[in-house]
Amino acid sequence: MKFNIALLAGDGIGPEVTEQAIKALDAIADVYDHTFKFTKALVGACAIDATGNPLPDDTIELCKASDAVLFGAIGHPKYDNDPSAKVRPEQGLLKLRKSLGLFCNIRPVKAYERLIENSPLKKEIISGTDISIYRELTGGIYFGDKHLSEDGQVASDGCSYSVAEITRIAHLAFKEAQNRRKKLTLVDKANVLETSRLWRKTVTEIAKEYDDVELDFLFVDNAAMQMILNPSQFDVILTENLFGDIISDEASVIGGSIGLLASASVGSTVGMFEPIHGSFPQATGKNIANPLASILSAAMMLRHLDLHKEADAIENAVEKSLELGITTGDINPKKAFTTTKVGDFIADYITHPD
Amino acid sequence: MKFNIALLAGDGIGPEVTEQAIKALDAIADVYDHTFKFTKALVGACAIDATGNPLPDDTIELCKASDAVLFGAIGHPKYDNDPSAKVRPEQGLLKLRKSLGLFCNIRPVKAYERLIENSPLKKEIISGTDISIYRELTGGIYFGDKHLSEDGQVASDGCSYSVAEITRIAHLAFKEAQNRRKKLTLVDKANVLETSRLWRKTVTEIAKEYDDVELDFLFVDNAAMQMILNPSQFDVILTENLFGDIISDEASVIGGSIGLLASASVGSTVGMFEPIHGSFPQATGKNIANPLASILSAAMMLRHLDLHKEADAIENAVEKSLELGITTGDINPKKAFTTTKVGDFIADYITHPD
Ligand SMILES: [Mg+2]
Ligand SMILES: [Mg+2]
Repeated sequence: MKFNIALLAGDGIGPEVTEQAIKALDAIADVYDHTFKFTKALVGACAIDATGNPLPDDTIELCKASDAVLFGAIGHPKYDNDPSAKVRPEQGLLKLRKSLGLFCNIRPVKAYERLIENSPLKKEIISGTDISIYRELTGGIYFGDKHLSEDGQVASDGCSYSVAEITRIAHLAFKEAQNRRKKLTLVDKANVLETSRLWRKTVTEIAKEYDDVELDFLFVDNAAMQMILNPSQFDVILTENLFGDIISDEASVIGGSIGLLASASVGSTVGMFEPIHGSFPQATGKNIANPLASILSAAMMLRHLDLHKEADAIENAVEKSLELGITTGDINPKKAFTTTKVGDFIADYITHPD
Repeated sequence: MKFNIALLAGDGIGPEVTEQAIKALDAIADVYDHTFKFTKALVGACAIDATGNPLPDDTIELCKASDAVLFGAIGHPKYDNDPSAKVRPEQGLLKLRKSLGLFCNIRPVKAYERLIENSPLKKEIISGTDISIYRELTGGIYFGDKHLSEDGQVASDGCSYSVAEITRIAHLAFKEAQNRRKKLTLVDKANVLETSRLWRKTVTEIAKEYDDVELDFLFVDNAAMQMILNPSQFDVILTENLFGDIISDEASVIGGSIGLLASASVGSTVGMFEPIHGSFPQATGKNIANPLASILSAAMMLRHLDLHKEADAIENAVEKSLELGITTGDINPKKAFTTTKVGDFIADYITHPD
């Protein structure tokens, strides 16, 4: 099959890690007889430098016309250190999510046996953890009405959710649970918040359409505890925007390997796939950045395109690289391979497994 | 000196653990020549049973006329399992906080060397952790306007904060930092929320009055990560209601010993001191509940009454009980002492240290 992939490598280490993901996808194309047509476009600081706009219209058009968007990272210190900057790289990402209607952020959290020693948690706590977090991305308090009284004495933020907003992401999460261990945990604060009660009511209603999935509920403060006490109890977690931000970032560190964490943002149309790490300016151009998160983002993309055995092939290659210790210095400082060497190994292993 | 203490032992294991705290305070009275006059009053399920009201007016009056309130726990399964119950034990606690103007919840989190093996985190991560979390307790989204549209399709919650609400708790937190390691971390989400920006602006302004305290800022999602990656970096944490709920519950499990966690709720007048554990109905009357959180709540009370060496004496006795393994079964199932035996040891050690 043929797929058009929009390639938004972005800033910092974005281009060099994305290049390794492309190598992996090219190997997949060879072995499984697909064609991936990659088209590059600008986003972030590099787009501001070239056009003055962190998300040029051309880029939006390209994404909309593609089957998927492979994203690198954005951000540059020259904008972080300039509070007066009116145009910021990050605006490109927010506008892109909005333009593409990406209302659902998906973050897998997995404890790789080979990396378990890197976790701040004890081995017996983290072992077996394999979570998929579904976070609502375009509603809630982050996008509510903001207000500051004229005298500057009182500030307010509004949080609201509609049944329609909850319904569309709930279906995605239930379907994911059906493809996994058939358990869905809704994280909310329904004992206090009206929006949480609407989430609980709506999700309980939708659960009737998925009677093979076990649904349970957890208050967000308790979820923050359970994520540390017993993370392997979770399968799919569904939650609203703010709670998802906190819980998914908390979960991201328990695996002990941020350099391996991929994410997807999906919605009504094309999906976008990206590592959760940022543009890491200090490492740019040094060939030391860990490409595995970008490579695993490509695997998430394949799964989203319904290419499941192809996604498995990439994930197996990543497991193999961990097993053999063919990894960058963030994982094993004593024996560090370069970004390109890790990428080459993954592509080779896809072409010639064992 | 003479102090009037309102004793609200409450439900479940509340009375039996509070009794051990009283033993410790009686020993303190003997050694340091104070008088603690304890007056009992009803709150929670036992108050509903006796009067129909989870917080009788007598109880409020007693608390207001006292120097401090020593609180046990509330809650009974017969109310939890009856969703139609109009009167609930928990209402007693919320109303009491409101009646006494308790706008600041204080939660210490400490890694006791003797218990560090019980933590889900690795020893080298948790070692040295000693945090005091200041959570705003009467504002923010938990107390905002709640709304559900007539057709049930849209729910909303309002979050608001005033400079006055932020200022009064900020001063308490800065003063605590001055008495500790002189570092204050404000946890907010100022890159997104208007209320957070008001917190940051107000706290930055107040910091000028405490130039011996180092102030820094952390977004709540990052704070949830840092609490796991490097908890010993924190001294005093200051934050709003919802973020404080999540972060303090997350922090409560990293020490590995919930049975030792005390808390204080303070405000404009009398302070209230209580263990964070609940009424634990399954253990009620079995003489197995861990009294150390209640005993450490009494120590927090003494510190609040400016009796610092007296508070130290209780805390030293608790450390000694851990060192000698004179603890309940939740800490060491292989060698479990009873609630009363632990209480007796603490009181004895206060009277005859070493
Ligand atoms: Mg975040
Ligand atoms: Mg809580």
